[in-house]
Amino acid sequence: MAKEIRIGLVGYKFMGRAHSNAYRQVSAFFDPKAVPVMKVICGRNEDGVRQAAEKFGWESYETSWEKLIERDDIDLVDISTPGDSHKPIAIAAAKAGKDILCEKPLANNLKDAEQMLAAVQKAGVKHMVGFNYRRVPAVTLAKQMIEEGRIGEIYHFRAVYLQDWIVDPDFPLVWRLQKEKAGSGPHGDLNAHIIDLARYLVGEIDEVVGMSKTFISERPLPEEMTGLAATASSQKGKVTVEDAALFLAKFKNGALGSFEATRFATGRKNYNHFEINGSKGSLVFTLEDMNYLEFYSRQDDEHIQGFRKIMVTEAVHPYVSAWWPPGHIIGYEHTFVHQAYDLMNALAEDKMPSPNFVDGVACQKVLEAVEQSINKAKWVKV
Amino acid sequence: MAKEIRIGLVGYKFMGRAHSNAYRQVSAFFDPKAVPVMKVICGRNEDGVRQAAEKFGWESYETSWEKLIERDDIDLVDISTPGDSHKPIAIAAAKAGKDILCEKPLANNLKDAEQMLAAVQKAGVKHMVGFNYRRVPAVTLAKQMIEEGRIGEIYHFRAVYLQDWIVDPDFPLVWRLQKEKAGSGPHGDLNAHIIDLARYLVGEIDEVVGMSKTFISERPLPEEMTGLAATASSQKGKVTVEDAALFLAKFKNGALGSFEATRFATGRKNYNHFEINGSKGSLVFTLEDMNYLEFYSRQDDEHIQGFRKIMVTEAVHPYVSAWWPPGHIIGYEHTFVHQAYDLMNALAEDKMPSPNFVDGVACQKVLEAVEQSINKAKWVKV
Amino acid sequence: MAKEIRIGLVGYKFMGRAHSNAYRQVSAFFDPKAVPVMKVICGRNEDGVRQAAEKFGWESYETSWEKLIERDDIDLVDISTPGDSHKPIAIAAAKAGKDILCEKPLANNLKDAEQMLAAVQKAGVKHMVGFNYRRVPAVTLAKQMIEEGRIGEIYHFRAVYLQDWIVDPDFPLVWRLQKEKAGSGPHGDLNAHIIDLARYLVGEIDEVVGMSKTFISERPLPEEMTGLAATASSQKGKVTVEDAALFLAKFKNGALGSFEATRFATGRKNYNHFEINGSKGSLVFTLEDMNYLEFYSRQDDEHIQGFRKIMVTEAVHPYVSAWWPPGHIIGYEHTFVHQAYDLMNALAEDKMPSPNFVDGVACQKVLEAVEQSINKAKWVKV
Amino acid sequence: MAKEIRIGLVGYKFMGRAHSNAYRQVSAFFDPKAVPVMKVICGRNEDGVRQAAEKFGWESYETSWEKLIERDDIDLVDISTPGDSHKPIAIAAAKAGKDILCEKPLANNLKDAEQMLAAVQKAGVKHMVGFNYRRVPAVTLAKQMIEEGRIGEIYHFRAVYLQDWIVDPDFPLVWRLQKEKAGSGPHGDLNAHIIDLARYLVGEIDEVVGMSKTFISERPLPEEMTGLAATASSQKGKVTVEDAALFLAKFKNGALGSFEATRFATGRKNYNHFEINGSKGSLVFTLEDMNYLEFYSRQDDEHIQGFRKIMVTEAVHPYVSAWWPPGHIIGYEHTFVHQAYDLMNALAEDKMPSPNFVDGVACQKVLEAVEQSINKAKWVKV
Repeated sequence: MAKEIRIGLVGYKFMGRAHSNAYRQVSAFFDPKAVPVMKVICGRNEDGVRQAAEKFGWESYETSWEKLIERDDIDLVDISTPGDSHKPIAIAAAKAGKDILCEKPLANNLKDAEQMLAAVQKAGVKHMVGFNYRRVPAVTLAKQMIEEGRIGEIYHFRAVYLQDWIVDPDFPLVWRLQKEKAGSGPHGDLNAHIIDLARYLVGEIDEVVGMSKTFISERPLPEEMTGLAATASSQKGKVTVEDAALFLAKFKNGALGSFEATRFATGRKNYNHFEINGSKGSLVFTLEDMNYLEFYSRQDDEHIQGFRKIMVTEAVHPYVSAWWPPGHIIGYEHTFVHQAYDLMNALAEDKMPSPNFVDGVACQKVLEAVEQSINKAKWVKV
Repeated sequence: MAKEIRIGLVGYKFMGRAHSNAYRQVSAFFDPKAVPVMKVICGRNEDGVRQAAEKFGWESYETSWEKLIERDDIDLVDISTPGDSHKPIAIAAAKAGKDILCEKPLANNLKDAEQMLAAVQKAGVKHMVGFNYRRVPAVTLAKQMIEEGRIGEIYHFRAVYLQDWIVDPDFPLVWRLQKEKAGSGPHGDLNAHIIDLARYLVGEIDEVVGMSKTFISERPLPEEMTGLAATASSQKGKVTVEDAALFLAKFKNGALGSFEATRFATGRKNYNHFEINGSKGSLVFTLEDMNYLEFYSRQDDEHIQGFRKIMVTEAVHPYVSAWWPPGHIIGYEHTFVHQAYDLMNALAEDKMPSPNFVDGVACQKVLEAVEQSINKAKWVKV
Repeated sequence: MAKEIRIGLVGYKFMGRAHSNAYRQVSAFFDPKAVPVMKVICGRNEDGVRQAAEKFGWESYETSWEKLIERDDIDLVDISTPGDSHKPIAIAAAKAGKDILCEKPLANNLKDAEQMLAAVQKAGVKHMVGFNYRRVPAVTLAKQMIEEGRIGEIYHFRAVYLQDWIVDPDFPLVWRLQKEKAGSGPHGDLNAHIIDLARYLVGEIDEVVGMSKTFISERPLPEEMTGLAATASSQKGKVTVEDAALFLAKFKNGALGSFEATRFATGRKNYNHFEINGSKGSLVFTLEDMNYLEFYSRQDDEHIQGFRKIMVTEAVHPYVSAWWPPGHIIGYEHTFVHQAYDLMNALAEDKMPSPNFVDGVACQKVLEAVEQSINKAKWVKV
Repeated sequence: MAKEIRIGLVGYKFMGRAHSNAYRQVSAFFDPKAVPVMKVICGRNEDGVRQAAEKFGWESYETSWEKLIERDDIDLVDISTPGDSHKPIAIAAAKAGKDILCEKPLANNLKDAEQMLAAVQKAGVKHMVGFNYRRVPAVTLAKQMIEEGRIGEIYHFRAVYLQDWIVDPDFPLVWRLQKEKAGSGPHGDLNAHIIDLARYLVGEIDEVVGMSKTFISERPLPEEMTGLAATASSQKGKVTVEDAALFLAKFKNGALGSFEATRFATGRKNYNHFEINGSKGSLVFTLEDMNYLEFYSRQDDEHIQGFRKIMVTEAVHPYVSAWWPPGHIIGYEHTFVHQAYDLMNALAEDKMPSPNFVDGVACQKVLEAVEQSINKAKWVKV
């Protein structure tokens, strides 16, 4: 019988819901070497977390993450809260000898991230960071194709992560727009993802220069801060994170990179997009069409070269055989199921999952170098 | 507390898996007025069905559908088996007073379908037929937009359902290629879907003329028939269903229709595609890109008219608010969750679900008229 | 020095303009073995044709095609008039020993077309029919790839030619909507094109069944018939051609075909589109994106199969080296330049151009069989 | 009768051919207020220029641009040569009182460009710079839509110009790879275009930071330098321009910009692409699909918002009514015809054409600021 991994999940909103789903679904489609047991979910609002526990299928709930960590029926602590709480939870969990899955970005700054890494290494626990987009089958296939040499030496990595959910100036000042909670705006939220993909697919970044901007500097206070609907409130607060952050990068292997994260790209909803150009071919991916990977090969006969749109839904593609027949697409939440699958297997085999806190720190270094380059208005070494 | 509907599912392969998932997921994302309870799953192979029960989360299993129907802890019988068994199971279930969800096509021929309809009507039970593609949010939105008058009077409905999974002549003679089990080939399997979409979006079909063809007439016998891997076997059997079926149609409201179903469209995996042209605008949908609906409006200013690609992932779109933020796409299996949601609500409110056996029969009438038109080489009234 | 071919062009509207451009441009980009000399253009309205002659670069003009044909300084008669005048002009030109390029459809009915073919064959002159879309580089490439065996045995040909220019009921009753001038509606105008492409790419059609419809039966008389702007006129006339015509076809080689031509596909402007599915691959073309050809190959490695979008702008592609560097696209009128190029070369080398009146008659046979099948409501042999 | 403008064209290769075509075609499709007369074409190689004169339709040829400028039957000097000769030709032409059309970039450096501007201003002649992409109908429409307020306040301009024609290391060291002739690589060649589009559509750039790289530092000497085919030659020379150049930009109006030009984007042939995000909507353009403009509007009803693909081939669109019916696309060379049309009209009306040397200098300032920022590794004010 498969080993069981007893999970304690902290956070029950967007990420909490996605992670809950992953644990609920993974054994119904895959055969992981260890089986997750949905022991406890934790949140500060008791009504909210009780309902979440019931709805998402958790055995119990807690309103204090400290208590969750103290419980001896928990093997893995899953941290799906805003960035400002990652460090205390992760360090406490490590001290308690729990394995950890932590959402990205690992922390709100490099120093915190490094302390978290030190803590898990000292404790000798397993750790993983939630860069779930590595587990989009098309992205995993891109990695495989690069390793097969299909695009040759890489010259360019060009990525944007575009959203538009705050383009309306009346959108309220939610936690993601407050520096003390979120650490940063789309830089930590979105650039973190495409930096991780760059590291996964291309390699380490050597040097960066960036810029950022807050287009709308004041916004209505949200209902939970005023007791009034944001639209009804005349109270405004200051936006303390950037609305957009762009940077250029030089990779250690000589490739050139371009990165952009914004929440002001009207019409782009979740447009995580990259193009990689190599000496033999190119790859293009867009999260909004995540079941496809585009590929151009100079090795095709000359008169039939073109970008081919690979529908990554065949049994030969990564993770796909667990799901549906060819052409039956999967969606956003499946990436978390894949992550849970790989995490369960790693824990069952006593291996370190990937990406882990080392990658979380490496990503944070790039994020922080970009911030420095913005402050200093010049190139900064990572 | 929400009412419970105790489910007995017959069939544990492709459709059984999709339906199981729907019952497992619906309450975790939606708030249906009745909650499905996964009581029992049924299949002839005891090892297979036992494993399925465990993997998919059913409380128990049966190896005889007759026994399942006899159980008094079952409210709804879900028929997810090949078409030849739909009739006996449905009629028995109706007689036992069970509500029924039956996969499409309702039966392998019109006569059987009509008997099934008579049985459920006589028994006064609720019934639904599994035309799940009505519940793709983009398709439901298309319906809504037509009702809003956005495309005006409809002139053309143009649909194809293209696959390629048997284009290899060495693909074995599976049950879907055997007339006695499947009833027909892509005609009942795929045309049934686009006929239902046509009826849902445009209206009733009046007259049809069609053609069909079997491109590969003999195929290797499958492993379960010879005990050998199909590729290793020299034994071949006759393909008794068509490989492709096309027909033209005249709708009662004056629109012209064109339909095609094939398993020989190399490169098309699950290409269920339609275009509707009306006096004010057009709509285009493709299942492989099921999170989008294309819309052209003659009511836009003249110099900015164009097909707009609506990403159907906004909270204002049908079913979507239960899932993820904008731009976070959903996949194939979600259509079954939506179907389960609507079914649970209908049962909770004592309403007849839609589409139901009446629609199943109506679809079958079109299928059968096409077959007659092929045999007679002329137009046939539905 | 290159031989000269002295051209007499009948017709100075849409097609006259396109053909004039072809003769003016061909030698500036290509090196045809014979050089066209733009001798004379002909039209009934003297003011109109005089201006056209000057604007398009013709040496002289005539107001009677009979006079044009009598001129002994003319080698080639180019017939770019409405269909009802093709026969008398072509037969007279043939009798006068002129080579002929005639716009498609060759005639308004099969009998006329056959008489035209008999006339040119009796006279021993060269003849060509203006199916210009064979000369879209992407289409010529498709032909080449089929001959290379890249898609294998052909199972399906699926073509539509969709326009929307008369979807407004107030659009006036122009000549193309009058049977005595145009012969038919989109059937002869648009289906003729895709039938020719089918014959070029797949082979001969054996049997057909079709349907057609006139959605708007009366329209305002155009200004030239009433002396009033169509919008101002209360006079209406009867539309005597169909608005849409669809048919199914069986090819002699066993492939199945589907064809549709309509002027009521709102949003589709010049959507001449086909998809061909074969045992080894598929090809897709759309005239609105005429610089591309899509190609799917089952011979690619399994995990990288996908429809590739070949940008047909490389020097290795048909006709392209005469134009611009890769990625610099060409447009609609270039197809006529290619046609002129091939025509000039054929005449220089004393070879019969292709497609010629034989193809014009073959296309007309299909058109007429479809019309009969509509009248008889059953399948008709071509 | 329309005024005549007598043209003297310097250069007969790629641009010379495109400009010749424009003068030959403009009066056949448009009704410009002045008519170009193709007087003389000039090139150093007598055989080459004589053939070009004949092929392209010029009355005469010269082998010295000084002689061309001396001729008193020339009104307009068109400079279509490599960048290093722009300055002497332009200054001499200005002194001779000729109006001037000069290809982009205006010069190989800012100082030269400023001297050219001073010369034309002192001479009081008309001047234009060949940023032909402003005359793609879709781009002109984008400008119009921005002026109509359809996308609101602009937040982001994101442009790339990607090609791949030198990705093969054996591609020879042609003039465009030599700094003394070309001034720079894709920076002056391609970034110049997208900088001009940025200035046209968004506004002036305030500050930039960039990076560039030469991926292949040595290449075979071309045939004209060694007398041997490049592939046969073992002689290599140093590439003295960059292979790729990227930069970030801050616009004076607060928008953020991102620019990239490369010749190493495998599979991208002429991928001049921009996306503009504003407070009310977004626009997307790609030169390889130049007949389309994508537009997203937040002012559409919420459930039908999406990027609409405007096919810019309607009579209401800029320049289009002169060409073909809707859906009949135009190509690359048409942009030069539009440029010639606007130039002829400006000269006929004694108005300064746009864009002119003022724009050429403004573009050069940005190009030079980027180069400085690369050298200094920090942000530089334009």
